Amino acid sequence: MDGKTLAAKWHEVALSSDPHAVSAMLHDDAVFESPVVHSPQRGKAITTAYLTSAGNVLGNDSFEYVGEWYAENSCVLEFKLELDGIQINGVDMISCNDEGQITHFKVMVRPLKAINLVHQKMGEMLEKMKG
Amino acid sequence: MDGKTLAAKWHEVALSSDPHAVSAMLHDDAVFESPVVHSPQRGKAITTAYLTSAGNVLGNDSFEYVGEWYAENSCVLEFKLELDGIQINGVDMISCNDEGQITHFKVMVRPLKAINLVHQKMGEMLEKMKG
Repeated sequence: MDGKTLAAKWHEVALSSDPHAVSAMLHDDAVFESPVVHSPQRGKAITTAYLTSAGNVLGNDSFEYVGEWYAENSCVLEFKLELDGIQINGVDMISCNDEGQITHFKVMVRPLKAINLVHQKMGEMLEKMKG
Repeated sequence: MDGKTLAAKWHEVALSSDPHAVSAMLHDDAVFESPVVHSPQRGKAITTAYLTSAGNVLGNDSFEYVGEWYAENSCVLEFKLELDGIQINGVDMISCNDEGQITHFKVMVRPLKAINLVHQKMGEMLEKMKG
């Protein structure tokens, strides 16, 4: 799948804020890599949890995608938002197989203040979702 | 300029480790955005200083570019390296004008440990270059 089609599919799913829609787009062995920790999170369940949690934490009214870059079976989507008075700038780096199932989802965030805030908020959100 | 040509030009300059080659590829009003601080650094001189400093800090034998994504007048280059036993993963997000002069250079790094290390090392390197 070309990167532009993948990006369009992801935008649709991200807008829906629906964990089932997110999960349906993931390969069973999907891997999530966070901006905070080095170790990849492996599998559809944990990847869905991270992406849904990230959507809950970051998806406020100020969130917008501001740039797109493509490769075969892959895209990079840049986003910006403001949270608790902190400017957050980041990228979603998404890879899929030929059928368009997401196999790899990596997120990077800048600047340092924003990562510390995302770290704290994601921790709280993942705890809440467990409970 | 298409993103692929821009990427190839940057790889050539990055490999040379030559501040003059870096500077020659920059627009006079080039802007650098670091993984650590929010405020953009404006102008060819400070952008050259940051890119040269980043090359000195990160450009060890383990450094390699591992992925490329393209847009018109822009590319995203993913890199990996190990420094002081820490795995560093990041992206160079490069934009240019129609003549291929770099107008904007943004860097993001993950995970948190890596940003803290880059923060410390870049601070030391920029101090050394001033002195």
